[in-house]
Amino acid sequence: MSGNSFGKLYKLTSFGESHGKAVGGIIEGVAPGLELDMEFIQKEMNRRRPGQSTITTPRDEKDKVEILSGEFEGKATGTPMGFVVWNADQRSGDYSNIKDIYRPSHADYTYQSKYGIRDYRGGGRSSARETIARVFAGAIAKLILKKEQIEIHAFTSSVGNISLNKHFSELDLSKTDNNIVRCPDSETAKKMIDYIDQVRQNKDSVGGIITCVIKNVPVGLGEPVFEKLHANLGHAMLGINAVKGFEYGSGFGATQMMGSEHNDEYYMEDNKVRTKTNRSGGIQGGISNGEDIYFNVAFKPIATILKEQKTVNAEGNEVMTTVKGRHDPCVLPRAVPIVEAMAAMVLVDHIYLNKMYH
Amino acid sequence: MSGNSFGKLYKLTSFGESHGKAVGGIIEGVAPGLELDMEFIQKEMNRRRPGQSTITTPRDEKDKVEILSGEFEGKATGTPMGFVVWNADQRSGDYSNIKDIYRPSHADYTYQSKYGIRDYRGGGRSSARETIARVFAGAIAKLILKKEQIEIHAFTSSVGNISLNKHFSELDLSKTDNNIVRCPDSETAKKMIDYIDQVRQNKDSVGGIITCVIKNVPVGLGEPVFEKLHANLGHAMLGINAVKGFEYGSGFGATQMMGSEHNDEYYMEDNKVRTKTNRSGGIQGGISNGEDIYFNVAFKPIATILKEQKTVNAEGNEVMTTVKGRHDPCVLPRAVPIVEAMAAMVLVDHIYLNKMYH
Amino acid sequence: MSGNSFGKLYKLTSFGESHGKAVGGIIEGVAPGLELDMEFIQKEMNRRRPGQSTITTPRDEKDKVEILSGEFEGKATGTPMGFVVWNADQRSGDYSNIKDIYRPSHADYTYQSKYGIRDYRGGGRSSARETIARVFAGAIAKLILKKEQIEIHAFTSSVGNISLNKHFSELDLSKTDNNIVRCPDSETAKKMIDYIDQVRQNKDSVGGIITCVIKNVPVGLGEPVFEKLHANLGHAMLGINAVKGFEYGSGFGATQMMGSEHNDEYYMEDNKVRTKTNRSGGIQGGISNGEDIYFNVAFKPIATILKEQKTVNAEGNEVMTTVKGRHDPCVLPRAVPIVEAMAAMVLVDHIYLNKMYH
Amino acid sequence: MSGNSFGKLYKLTSFGESHGKAVGGIIEGVAPGLELDMEFIQKEMNRRRPGQSTITTPRDEKDKVEILSGEFEGKATGTPMGFVVWNADQRSGDYSNIKDIYRPSHADYTYQSKYGIRDYRGGGRSSARETIARVFAGAIAKLILKKEQIEIHAFTSSVGNISLNKHFSELDLSKTDNNIVRCPDSETAKKMIDYIDQVRQNKDSVGGIITCVIKNVPVGLGEPVFEKLHANLGHAMLGINAVKGFEYGSGFGATQMMGSEHNDEYYMEDNKVRTKTNRSGGIQGGISNGEDIYFNVAFKPIATILKEQKTVNAEGNEVMTTVKGRHDPCVLPRAVPIVEAMAAMVLVDHIYLNKMYH
Repeated sequence: MSGNSFGKLYKLTSFGESHGKAVGGIIEGVAPGLELDMEFIQKEMNRRRPGQSTITTPRDEKDKVEILSGEFEGKATGTPMGFVVWNADQRSGDYSNIKDIYRPSHADYTYQSKYGIRDYRGGGRSSARETIARVFAGAIAKLILKKEQIEIHAFTSSVGNISLNKHFSELDLSKTDNNIVRCPDSETAKKMIDYIDQVRQNKDSVGGIITCVIKNVPVGLGEPVFEKLHANLGHAMLGINAVKGFEYGSGFGATQMMGSEHNDEYYMEDNKVRTKTNRSGGIQGGISNGEDIYFNVAFKPIATILKEQKTVNAEGNEVMTTVKGRHDPCVLPRAVPIVEAMAAMVLVDHIYLNKMYH
Repeated sequence: MSGNSFGKLYKLTSFGESHGKAVGGIIEGVAPGLELDMEFIQKEMNRRRPGQSTITTPRDEKDKVEILSGEFEGKATGTPMGFVVWNADQRSGDYSNIKDIYRPSHADYTYQSKYGIRDYRGGGRSSARETIARVFAGAIAKLILKKEQIEIHAFTSSVGNISLNKHFSELDLSKTDNNIVRCPDSETAKKMIDYIDQVRQNKDSVGGIITCVIKNVPVGLGEPVFEKLHANLGHAMLGINAVKGFEYGSGFGATQMMGSEHNDEYYMEDNKVRTKTNRSGGIQGGISNGEDIYFNVAFKPIATILKEQKTVNAEGNEVMTTVKGRHDPCVLPRAVPIVEAMAAMVLVDHIYLNKMYH
Repeated sequence: MSGNSFGKLYKLTSFGESHGKAVGGIIEGVAPGLELDMEFIQKEMNRRRPGQSTITTPRDEKDKVEILSGEFEGKATGTPMGFVVWNADQRSGDYSNIKDIYRPSHADYTYQSKYGIRDYRGGGRSSARETIARVFAGAIAKLILKKEQIEIHAFTSSVGNISLNKHFSELDLSKTDNNIVRCPDSETAKKMIDYIDQVRQNKDSVGGIITCVIKNVPVGLGEPVFEKLHANLGHAMLGINAVKGFEYGSGFGATQMMGSEHNDEYYMEDNKVRTKTNRSGGIQGGISNGEDIYFNVAFKPIATILKEQKTVNAEGNEVMTTVKGRHDPCVLPRAVPIVEAMAAMVLVDHIYLNKMYH
Repeated sequence: MSGNSFGKLYKLTSFGESHGKAVGGIIEGVAPGLELDMEFIQKEMNRRRPGQSTITTPRDEKDKVEILSGEFEGKATGTPMGFVVWNADQRSGDYSNIKDIYRPSHADYTYQSKYGIRDYRGGGRSSARETIARVFAGAIAKLILKKEQIEIHAFTSSVGNISLNKHFSELDLSKTDNNIVRCPDSETAKKMIDYIDQVRQNKDSVGGIITCVIKNVPVGLGEPVFEKLHANLGHAMLGINAVKGFEYGSGFGATQMMGSEHNDEYYMEDNKVRTKTNRSGGIQGGISNGEDIYFNVAFKPIATILKEQKTVNAEGNEVMTTVKGRHDPCVLPRAVPIVEAMAAMVLVDHIYLNKMYH
């Protein structure tokens, strides 16, 4: 109820602040008997990890996950999986200058107002460090999806005004991790990387779009009315730090179309009902129709910049604030695995829910 | 769990198909003692009602709500409020020709696949007729919000490529209902109406954008991490039929901005912390900061058109389908009260949740 | 959250007061395609109905259920099933004398204190009339259980100090409805009926115990730790009006036993793991083990009696109160179908939940 | 959904097996600003701890809780409180002989059947070691209740057939912890201790009853119909290992009473509505009425005994089983703090829920 759980049958409850002892969580609904491929899991964790490239935050964390329960001899037991990742590089001292200062467009002011208390040493609970728990739970979810041949591919499709102007079907999505910005088109990737580097040198940050494609989804996932598959995907994505928008299928572009242009014509292929076009984005009436699901997630430039800014403090005085040290000029490369993780959790949850009817 | 409930403490559970006996629902969490202004409530219902203007569906329904419980002598008792709206103009005969046909971009195929059975006489549970329950629950929620001086204003801001190119602060939002397209700018409204009329004559449909502004929100609404205020607003909006996208504050536009441009500078005004700009859309770290909340909701052109279309039927044969009779060329005017209703429910829910901390 | 929903995947949300227009509810999770045997359903409703015999309340209600949605051509569609039962014999006038009076051991005072308002014409939401919704949802659940050969048998096992001193295995449980007190042993039944009749003539009421046996439960139902199968059964039973206690298997008797006496020895029978004794009551570690589940539910004498009683009114004055007209000297015969209904809902819910793991 | 969470607004999600690395959990809904009195918390943990006296299990665990989040400078921050207790004395070797053996009346067989896999080194998730998380969450809940002057007193009221035949009002409940069996009457306590010691020497175990009294509860806690305060208390208690029954107020005794005997007469005292007797157990219509709440919890003798027993193994062979080493002849002394912890959580949850209406 207090917003720290995600999912119903496959469910993550997370805990942890950026400058506390640890972040972690509990996953319920892990399929008993599932082989826990720890190498794969840690690789997913590393994709989110800070310090992995020159264009992300250099905070140095190993982010090694420790499973505390729900596992026996390398397999899931079906009981809740408690896990923890210790915060190594907390550097509490770095933030002492902002104890009473509300950093612009951060959550300092709103948390202080809501709770009357906060861990002022960093972003606390609003820090993206919390997403470690999501990536771990998403990695487990991906292992479950693998058995159903369901694939999730997120990638950076725009940074600032540098856009990847190709349809996802034209891209080799296995190449996403070949570069540090996680754009599967190497040429566009290079432009993005150069641009981010320039932004970093300007002590600034920049936003962008992550596109996500989900393949081999069975027909029938999604619960009508309030738990439509895309509504739950949207809810998941909008819960990621710095996200400002979500669109699936034809998205905002659909608002300028006619019904006769937009409707997806059905036809038969190999005895299966298929659609010729896929403006529906693989979801009709909130329920998957077997076509590729795809959606876009809009990220704002993150609020932490190294430039001096005007703001106010807790005493109501107008002051200047400057963050020193490290910052993350573009959050998108590290957000790619988070988008995938959230999507994976939504899918596993709906797969479980759907079993009720069969 | 099966997707028919919305909200946690202020909660609607709805039921009903387009061609069944009735639609209705149960609302939990109505504040005991609340005066039930039935005139206001019915007025809200009428705003959603079909047949209210030349540019919407002519299906003739009175949509008079009957409260069955939770009310005593004109006031809410705090117990669950059961309510029902009878389906008068069902015209079952109209749809018999589509018994086995999967209408393009409708939910016929996905529902049939998921459940193995459906009420083929119309859209069934996927019909927008279900939104009656939402508008009723939203009207009650608005009565609760009125006591807190919170105002919700949704309006049509684009239809096809006709856009209202004004910031909401420049508009007189009390004029939204002055015209049948529900755009507060009369000049733009006229263009939209003419355009929709033309679309209607072409037996086609068209999409558009609804913008929603929420004023006088107290600081502190929203639960961190997974139940961020904007994530719950997005979830609510994406659950409305024909919605393809959601953005709040700077939205997709933020993806092309620098942090130094995007951050909202804090200042003090009348002893309150305020922001000079409001790219945050009134929400920071998922929690309201007291500034206006605003967001856009993208609607696709609805799938029902009177043109002939190719499709397949349940036997797997490729057939043509034509819907005869009435259709709704542009869903936006009637969706405006639905957007407001969902937003109202989200806010009341978060107001209740927030009381836990105080 | 406000206490009007029961279950997770098979879920009833109910509404209605004793003297409002109607009681009813919404059931989510009805298996699509389920044949709705309306004769069976109405028969279950009749078992709970007042006025069915000389030893229960003579309030005259037909209690005919009207299904409003989720049904098509006699089958469930899998969408939420809205239903309503109209209150015919409300007799508002009967209760006018108790408008401001807190009837002893009723919920008048606590409801008034909690909500500040209540429908004073009768028990309102706390009236057992609400259990109509449970019996309907239970009847649907029983139809689902029938397909799995699961049987639920509740019966009156004691009234005052008249006890049925036989183990359930010695009884022919198909005979429960052969008499109006719903005790499968005709001799004990006769004593109970005579006793209740005497209590009725004394304008008094009397309590008793209902025993419930569930047969053919598959191994594996129940979720560990907080949703143990017996904990959910207990929760369900304790939510029935007038219930004061719950015990399963060896129950309170176990408190006087040694482990060596109490443990159920395992043995093999037809290649299945069985227990020789069944003090576990068919549940071990919160999970069903395939043996018969059985439990006892303790009912107090209901608070409505026709004798004069001392009490206070809303103004804080000490007054006398007398209920005139009808009363229910022993609630047990009508509570038997309610106990079965709640048990049926718990089982269907756990059957659905258990599918997650397979 | 998978049964590892308890509560709605004040919510514990727990994890951990008896022979895994750790047990722990996450608490949501801790009031921000709450002073975390660690001395009190650890004292509560110690009351549950094994090895605390000669009549409980000698398993040696320090059970020192480590708070990982949701705490800053000794106060709760309102964010989720992650915590962990490491398993020190696992002694995996002890249990190797029971790898494939289903211990009588344990959960070995049901877990194996449900999940197809289990940590066979001990009770796994069904072990009472999991209750550490409950006692910790209960200790935090007690700190919240202290501010409202609400007191919870549980005590051992019978062991085998040695009963404390005094009404709780005659007892000095502050003396409960003065002896190792946690019975506030020293004379009865002595008898119980001697008896348990004898049972222990016989390598057997024995059951009993814990009574719990809650004082100073405000009027109005409890949600009608399905979340009645006593139904939630019952649900909480029945989720504790080895519990077979629950009764509140007059309990099973009420089944032998007349309404005219059982009804609690109202009167006025200091301008407050009071009841002369308290057979209602402080709860009417599921809602607290301000009188003392009291209930009994029945514990069976725990299944682990040191005597040889017949059983079967996973291969379906009939075998003998003997547990060697330590065992807990009577679980009640250590269950007293667990009963209190669960009750405390239920109360805090309902206090939060009740704020919605005000």
